[in-house]
Amino acid sequence: MARHEFDSVEFHSTIGSHPPVLRIEPGDTVVTATVDAGGWDARGRQVAAPGNPQTGPFFVTGAEPGDALEVRFDRIWPNRDRAVASTSIAPRVLEPEYLQELSSVTPERVFAEWHVDTKQGTAMLMSPETGLGHLVLPIDPMLGCFGVAPDRGQAISTATSGPYGGNMDYRGFRVGVTVSLPVFVEGALFFVGDGHALQGEGEIAGTGLEISMDVEFSVALRKRAGIRWPRGESREHMFTVGNARPMDQAIQHATTEMVRWLQNDLCMDALGVHTLMGQCVEYDVGNVYDPAYTMVCKISKGLLAGLRRAPA
Amino acid sequence: MARHEFDSVEFHSTIGSHPPVLRIEPGDTVVTATVDAGGWDARGRQVAAPGNPQTGPFFVTGAEPGDALEVRFDRIWPNRDRAVASTSIAPRVLEPEYLQELSSVTPERVFAEWHVDTKQGTAMLMSPETGLGHLVLPIDPMLGCFGVAPDRGQAISTATSGPYGGNMDYRGFRVGVTVSLPVFVEGALFFVGDGHALQGEGEIAGTGLEISMDVEFSVALRKRAGIRWPRGESREHMFTVGNARPMDQAIQHATTEMVRWLQNDLCMDALGVHTLMGQCVEYDVGNVYDPAYTMVCKISKGLLAGLRRAPA
Amino acid sequence: MARHEFDSVEFHSTIGSHPPVLRIEPGDTVVTATVDAGGWDARGRQVAAPGNPQTGPFFVTGAEPGDALEVRFDRIWPNRDRAVASTSIAPRVLEPEYLQELSSVTPERVFAEWHVDTKQGTAMLMSPETGLGHLVLPIDPMLGCFGVAPDRGQAISTATSGPYGGNMDYRGFRVGVTVSLPVFVEGALFFVGDGHALQGEGEIAGTGLEISMDVEFSVALRKRAGIRWPRGESREHMFTVGNARPMDQAIQHATTEMVRWLQNDLCMDALGVHTLMGQCVEYDVGNVYDPAYTMVCKISKGLLAGLRRAPA
Amino acid sequence: MARHEFDSVEFHSTIGSHPPVLRIEPGDTVVTATVDAGGWDARGRQVAAPGNPQTGPFFVTGAEPGDALEVRFDRIWPNRDRAVASTSIAPRVLEPEYLQELSSVTPERVFAEWHVDTKQGTAMLMSPETGLGHLVLPIDPMLGCFGVAPDRGQAISTATSGPYGGNMDYRGFRVGVTVSLPVFVEGALFFVGDGHALQGEGEIAGTGLEISMDVEFSVALRKRAGIRWPRGESREHMFTVGNARPMDQAIQHATTEMVRWLQNDLCMDALGVHTLMGQCVEYDVGNVYDPAYTMVCKISKGLLAGLRRAPA
Repeated sequence: MARHEFDSVEFHSTIGSHPPVLRIEPGDTVVTATVDAGGWDARGRQVAAPGNPQTGPFFVTGAEPGDALEVRFDRIWPNRDRAVASTSIAPRVLEPEYLQELSSVTPERVFAEWHVDTKQGTAMLMSPETGLGHLVLPIDPMLGCFGVAPDRGQAISTATSGPYGGNMDYRGFRVGVTVSLPVFVEGALFFVGDGHALQGEGEIAGTGLEISMDVEFSVALRKRAGIRWPRGESREHMFTVGNARPMDQAIQHATTEMVRWLQNDLCMDALGVHTLMGQCVEYDVGNVYDPAYTMVCKISKGLLAGLRRAPA
Repeated sequence: MARHEFDSVEFHSTIGSHPPVLRIEPGDTVVTATVDAGGWDARGRQVAAPGNPQTGPFFVTGAEPGDALEVRFDRIWPNRDRAVASTSIAPRVLEPEYLQELSSVTPERVFAEWHVDTKQGTAMLMSPETGLGHLVLPIDPMLGCFGVAPDRGQAISTATSGPYGGNMDYRGFRVGVTVSLPVFVEGALFFVGDGHALQGEGEIAGTGLEISMDVEFSVALRKRAGIRWPRGESREHMFTVGNARPMDQAIQHATTEMVRWLQNDLCMDALGVHTLMGQCVEYDVGNVYDPAYTMVCKISKGLLAGLRRAPA
Repeated sequence: MARHEFDSVEFHSTIGSHPPVLRIEPGDTVVTATVDAGGWDARGRQVAAPGNPQTGPFFVTGAEPGDALEVRFDRIWPNRDRAVASTSIAPRVLEPEYLQELSSVTPERVFAEWHVDTKQGTAMLMSPETGLGHLVLPIDPMLGCFGVAPDRGQAISTATSGPYGGNMDYRGFRVGVTVSLPVFVEGALFFVGDGHALQGEGEIAGTGLEISMDVEFSVALRKRAGIRWPRGESREHMFTVGNARPMDQAIQHATTEMVRWLQNDLCMDALGVHTLMGQCVEYDVGNVYDPAYTMVCKISKGLLAGLRRAPA
Repeated sequence: MARHEFDSVEFHSTIGSHPPVLRIEPGDTVVTATVDAGGWDARGRQVAAPGNPQTGPFFVTGAEPGDALEVRFDRIWPNRDRAVASTSIAPRVLEPEYLQELSSVTPERVFAEWHVDTKQGTAMLMSPETGLGHLVLPIDPMLGCFGVAPDRGQAISTATSGPYGGNMDYRGFRVGVTVSLPVFVEGALFFVGDGHALQGEGEIAGTGLEISMDVEFSVALRKRAGIRWPRGESREHMFTVGNARPMDQAIQHATTEMVRWLQNDLCMDALGVHTLMGQCVEYDVGNVYDPAYTMVCKISKGLLAGLRRAPA
């Protein structure tokens, strides 16, 4: 149950079987930091090339293919006061016919600057000048991109995502959440980066409020868990994550993984699982911007707890 | 501001330019009932063929193509105690590779029976026997299918949806919500049906708890509104609805309609709209079962109200 | 085996259960004409509203739901010398990111005029001025939109398509081809229109060379055929047609219908069908422009004939 | 203009920046061999792990990011007489509703064995027993998977594809064709593998007739070509390749790349390009099985040659 303070000096723009920066044990906690999507750190220095540079990888002793790596996010909080964000909705999220019309009405692609008050937990729009004025929003810090090394020796761009995690840009990946990732290589090799002080659902502008973060996480291992896609638990929900395009395929992965969870891991009967999910399932949109889109399937933990208490 | 009590004896399985059953004025309220998706009414008699039979159409005096018909749902509540529901998740929402595996583990397609306690506002699973036992859930009544006659003299199956509304199966269409529909024909010709006592997001089993409903709604007219897709307002949100396949196209329609609403109707500047939506937009999944899927784009009304109070 | 000369004066912009304009018997031939997509006839008069106005419907005696209506196209040839065509590729067929760039480089949407020499069988580009000069192309006349009345009393816009046919814009619908359509209503109610002197695959500009046509077709009936999607035969191929969005769904319908044809109608064994299709299937893109896209699955008739001659 | 005989002993299951096995000059020819998708070589020995193992990479002197690597396939011919193939159409190519039905009618997934007569150029089905008997088909050898190292230091599974090439499974990649690939890293790093003696369009069963091949190819370099997706030339056509899911996105990439080719490289005017493609474009389906689907956009070279001869 060691607590490691790790100060990263090297960053990766792919998630793959890179040499580990630190070896940790199940139960350990890591206190570290992430640079922003553009590679800028807490002190405003660009220390990595742009494109969601990752801190890590962390080698988890005992992790083997087929296991699940559980990562609990204990702290995700901005460590500086300046965030940047896109100011244009991505073409792929708008009607194709609208785009030609749009190009005559929107200005050049500019980046917005936001001032983040880490004590108040707010962000204020500083520029450009828009009708929003100095809009102030409560922040809701999250991690856009994290994951474990994929199979076959692949090294995959941090622009996209898959069964191993990656750039999912789901605002539900916030503090207090535990995420399970399928392990594909020895040691799992966990990466983390791309913090957003705030992000709309879908990440439709292609960015959140991009900022460097203080991150603290703890790991555990579930041997031979046999999960196929990321799973997570928040206080209220258990959830599964599908990453693919189109959204129709992402939702198939997320939904099927939830069926497997309830049926194989929680040992519910097939008819009960289908009946329950049909009337009680919830969905979140992760992102509809990255090369793979992200859909999240959720079930209320309170609902499940009720089921177990009540004899049939 | 008349209040019409209308008892329907004829039902339609297409939404189109059928002869109106009642002529009403903007400001009027209609108190009526809908039969369930299978055509069964409050007294358990099958009075229409299955497939989301609709009550209506209601002709709204003064409505012309280009206007928006505003419908406020004042009451949506089950008028009997028996609901039926599917017990299998639709193949199109699961991984194709999983389906062949699935057919050996799931029983035949059976329908579940639920007992609805309209006083308590709960539903209890009566059959089939599953590990859920007699699961009791709070109901959350909604209307799965409603809309106005589409353009070109079309009559479109109540299985699907489009810019005119139709079978959207969005659980956000509940009491207290006001929906705006683009008017395509004189009188608008409003239809309503397909009540669900409860439904999971996505309607992934292909049904909610299908039940007949007491429905009360009031209409208003916004002349030359020029909306292109359904819009709505709940207490917390303004929202737009896109109906299409794949989900990627549905979300394009919903998102673009929200841009138009903020920019053209609320007169916000383009840069402000994109900046705001990028960080604050929310999405709901309507249905991912019907021939056209439904995605909903939402913005918090409180957030917008704050914007207007604060000078830039 | 009557031969009917039918001169249409009324046209429909939906395919639905409209009053028949002519009653014919299986085995009969109809000699008629179609107006172009904009409603203009052989003499250059606009006699119908734009949007693929249809000639028909023709009531085929004895046709009942579950039957297949076989339509053989005996003649499809332009009956005037002027065609019009779009000059811009549709936004939905181009990369979203390219569209904003594009709007600054392409001129306003203009229509090209083509002069069709019906004796030589060629089309010459007359305007606008482009680097193509007076490009001359051999024509290859086809029908973009035809079908039978759909189920449930629907009347569906001639902009789109479905199991009943409709606006499929497949250049393989040319003279000599026999098309089978699933019958949904008594008399089948066959419609025909939207001739193209020539069209690229995918109809990516949204039009072919739009022109009025002389059309001659003969009908036959296959009782209780139980087909689900349009099927066809050319000299070289048997083919099946799927109409849906995205293309991924259209190709599922076409492929599954071919499996059914080979397995249920030609009585091949399942393993043989899958093995054969895996290595010998061909696909054509119908359209990727209309609300429903069209994909065509083909098998060589020579290949199948060879199979039947050779004992296993 | 050297001619290298290269006998590979090491194979890669990712396309990435691996150490080159041979350094060649533009103009050089390489005579080598590929193992089959399962890793079996000409002599029937399994020398690599399954999953489209690649021969290479070949480092091309002078190749830099932004260039195009031109690869002409001079020889692609089976070097043994045994091929294997799947006998079941992939679930993702069939209607979801059909799949549950299907599992009860198709046998277990078995592999077919084919005997390839490399002199006659034919393949004969040897097993399993089906109604096809000992079906004999002419072979049409092609390469399913080849490409150059992608950007960002990625190493991507040979199961999928992208702008760099990869597992495109397009039957048009046959002898005589020249393919241009965008160069992302110094030396380009060209890989080649996954030969099919024959394959249906779409590779809908997930395999062709998988076989090891003798392969001969020659390379050239086009500096600062700025292409974004693979391009190719056969005797009759110039073509562009888009790799993505859904097919709708793959066709957008292919179509846009053809617009760029005609407009930027062949210096045609925008209006001419759109007018010509609208009426003359052709499409092929590469694969609809792999994680990324492949669509091919084609223009007749004879048509373009005609354009250049004729003054406007």
